[in-house]
Amino acid sequence: MAATAAVDIKELVGSYIFVVDVPGLRNTEVKVQIENDTILKISGERKRDTEGGAGKEAEVKYVRVERPAGKFMRKFNLPNHVNVDAMSAACQDGLLTIVVPKLPTPEPHKPRTFDVNVGTCLVPK
Amino acid sequence: MAATAAVDIKELVGSYIFVVDVPGLRNTEVKVQIENDTILKISGERKRDTEGGAGKEAEVKYVRVERPAGKFMRKFNLPNHVNVDAMSAACQDGLLTIVVPKLPTPEPHKPRTFDVNVGTCLVPK
Repeated sequence: MAATAAVDIKELVGSYIFVVDVPGLRNTEVKVQIENDTILKISGERKRDTEGGAGKEAEVKYVRVERPAGKFMRKFNLPNHVNVDAMSAACQDGLLTIVVPKLPTPEPHKPRTFDVNVGTCLVPK
Repeated sequence: MAATAAVDIKELVGSYIFVVDVPGLRNTEVKVQIENDTILKISGERKRDTEGGAGKEAEVKYVRVERPAGKFMRKFNLPNHVNVDAMSAACQDGLLTIVVPKLPTPEPHKPRTFDVNVGTCLVPK
């Protein structure tokens, strides 16, 4: 079965969190990249070992194969108003967690108020 | 998506190895049992967290859900000639690995040979 990586995306008050299933992979085996400041790219490879373990090659026969193997790549358009420079990623227990903080919400534009003086006129004569 | 757990089974010279994808689960969250000395049962639950992290509940909105969640259970008939008492199981990086050693192969039955003496007769008179 071709490899893939299932992804959940959570939105919190201050950030977006991407949670990716990468069973069997460690920190160094998953690549997280930002393209054009707007695209989050997650890639890696799930390998099916052909050794019998214990450091030496041994005769291995697969009698059942359900786990996907091979290279995978996922891309996501990031929302506006995120701070890609403050992103963080960690891999534990076969889960990759990427935190993308939101930028502080800009203050809403307040209507500007002008005093209107009685008897003055700004229209040039 | 309902939870499941993909399983590969490898046969080595001296054992069978079950490799199970359990991303996000730890040792204590996966149960491995033997039923009737012949059935291997693997079960657990993949939970989707509803907290915002950092130990306090926060507003969480899922904007994408691909990862399966819920309880899962898999059963496998074990082959003959395995030693279930010597089984071992370990969980690391979201992979559960169960080693089921084979019993030593019994010696093939050799044909028994009898000496035939000339002139003697075993038939009762």
